[in-house]
Amino acid sequence: MSVNLRIPGPTPCPDDVLQAMSRQMINHRGPEFQEIITRITSSLQQFFETKNDVLTLTSAGTGAIEAAVVNTFSPGDRALCVSIGVFGDRFADIAQTYGVNVEKLSFDQGTAADPDAVAAALKKDASFKAVLLTHNETSTGVTNDLGAIAKAIRGVRPDILILVDAISSLGSVPLPIDAWDLDVVFTGSQKGWMVPPGMAMVAVSQRAWKAVDQARIPRYYFDYKKAKSYLEKGQTPWTPAVSVYFAMDVALQKLQKEGLKNIHERHARLGQFTRDSVKAMGLKIVPGEERYASNTVTAVWVPDGVDGPALNKMMRTEYNTVLAGGQGPLTGKIFRIGHLGFVSQEDLQACFDALKQALPRVGYSPVAAAR
Amino acid sequence: MSVNLRIPGPTPCPDDVLQAMSRQMINHRGPEFQEIITRITSSLQQFFETKNDVLTLTSAGTGAIEAAVVNTFSPGDRALCVSIGVFGDRFADIAQTYGVNVEKLSFDQGTAADPDAVAAALKKDASFKAVLLTHNETSTGVTNDLGAIAKAIRGVRPDILILVDAISSLGSVPLPIDAWDLDVVFTGSQKGWMVPPGMAMVAVSQRAWKAVDQARIPRYYFDYKKAKSYLEKGQTPWTPAVSVYFAMDVALQKLQKEGLKNIHERHARLGQFTRDSVKAMGLKIVPGEERYASNTVTAVWVPDGVDGPALNKMMRTEYNTVLAGGQGPLTGKIFRIGHLGFVSQEDLQACFDALKQALPRVGYSPVAAAR
Repeated sequence: MSVNLRIPGPTPCPDDVLQAMSRQMINHRGPEFQEIITRITSSLQQFFETKNDVLTLTSAGTGAIEAAVVNTFSPGDRALCVSIGVFGDRFADIAQTYGVNVEKLSFDQGTAADPDAVAAALKKDASFKAVLLTHNETSTGVTNDLGAIAKAIRGVRPDILILVDAISSLGSVPLPIDAWDLDVVFTGSQKGWMVPPGMAMVAVSQRAWKAVDQARIPRYYFDYKKAKSYLEKGQTPWTPAVSVYFAMDVALQKLQKEGLKNIHERHARLGQFTRDSVKAMGLKIVPGEERYASNTVTAVWVPDGVDGPALNKMMRTEYNTVLAGGQGPLTGKIFRIGHLGFVSQEDLQACFDALKQALPRVGYSPVAAAR
Repeated sequence: MSVNLRIPGPTPCPDDVLQAMSRQMINHRGPEFQEIITRITSSLQQFFETKNDVLTLTSAGTGAIEAAVVNTFSPGDRALCVSIGVFGDRFADIAQTYGVNVEKLSFDQGTAADPDAVAAALKKDASFKAVLLTHNETSTGVTNDLGAIAKAIRGVRPDILILVDAISSLGSVPLPIDAWDLDVVFTGSQKGWMVPPGMAMVAVSQRAWKAVDQARIPRYYFDYKKAKSYLEKGQTPWTPAVSVYFAMDVALQKLQKEGLKNIHERHARLGQFTRDSVKAMGLKIVPGEERYASNTVTAVWVPDGVDGPALNKMMRTEYNTVLAGGQGPLTGKIFRIGHLGFVSQEDLQACFDALKQALPRVGYSPVAAAR
């Protein structure tokens, strides 16, 4: 029986995507790689709904966060970082590490960022060069209303840079980069793209390129300009994770067939199915308002009397189902169910069938939980 | 007919290594990944002939160069960079990018670094905190006598840091890290390890860890300390290129079976076979002294009257054989034959059979070349 991998990345990959991973190596500076990276780039632009440059980096998503920071800032620049959880905090940490003067606007766990509060922070202080945002906060299962936040930001500062961590949202939920006028937006292969980890993808606007020209934080491996100049000849500056490019090429063709709108609808439907199933079991989701609940990952409070890690362990060892735990301050307090990328209602139903069996065995009583 | 990929990385991978690349995803924070990274780390320590910590990073080799710099230096620190080609220059560039005050000791193309000259440079100036070295210069096919250079360095400065780019040598030619007392030594999965690109591996000495504690260049994605602390729980700080870990696990078991000594002997034998074959065709290798010629990649001067890129193109399109061209100042002037990792004498013989047919067709006359 195959494992039901229900973490928010790495996500399961379709068979033909996995088969592409096993292709023999090619010259990463030859015509075949050129065709592949050119096709990937063009396809990603469609999924990103952008005419901006799209670059691919060989790294984890965290490398993409770092790249966004080191390419657009000089030490001492001011940035407003809107954080609703662990990954928002990480964005701020990375910016601070590289000398950016970060003001953090944090919202309570399980809540989304308030567009008006973001606008107010920008009105109060005109020194910000950029706003750092997380579209989908994987640690709490909350999706910010990025369109509304971007609109609120542009209302105050039409030309400020907007940098968006869309690692666990882009491709799975609506994120029209050009329509929302976002400057740097990045994601990772192992999320909604149905591809193993190793590639980060980033869209860079004209406004961002101007910032890159002025930015003085040192950079080399993650240098956007080097990536762009090599992309023009169908290459990457450094040896890419060739196999992940093979896989991405196949995955994007599959996603093209399904169509962006259908992919978004599937994720919306499965997000709703997950939340409905969670509630039907008497459990509570972390997001306070369901309209902000993520359609790629659902965070669920571990009910009273249940040991979270013990539940996850039982699910893994006895039900072949891998859930994610909590991170940071939520460690042990929540479990998370990934439903992004290559996922169907049957996969989720199997997960809930297992949960229904496992929960009473680790001390869960719906009646007690409902009190 | 399969392609004869004769570039110095990505190198061809054995079938079972490629099959491992197509394994379904697992939780990178679960017990199965813990087993894999623990086994890989321990095996790499054996191949590196070191008791030092071995860390794995999801990046190209250039990321490993950057990691070596940002983890061990503070801005303004002095370093002596010994360069014998493009990759030595890159090491210096990266260090300078991050504010290291680099003095470059360059040697002519095709020559190896002179240990006495390195010692003399250290005697003249006591301010150097570190020496940056390239073990095998992939751009010219020259292998430095790293043991002799390290000995010369330690004779002058017993406690200076020695950082070694061993990307295209480690695992293929002798490089006993502890015996030579080297501090930071790194390589990449797509070289002698018979694994697709995406993983860099680095050994870090106790002396290097002390430098890490003092180093103030900002770092996050490539932070050795984060990598070490996560490795202690069988994880990586950021999502790793899981498939490349699967493949490395299989490849290391194969390499263990062959045995380090046998692997070194095979590379020495195939290096000699390549040089003998090149010379038998009336061609000249780039290294001036054959004792410094690399056993992982052979650089060959494009003979008079022959267009280098046209030769490589004909080899690729008509003989299914992919050679590498020249880099930097050697662009168009040389071609290179990779013979590292998963390679046999038959692969090289097929390459030379093709070269013998292709060369006259692009204007090569052995008599003219010999004049």
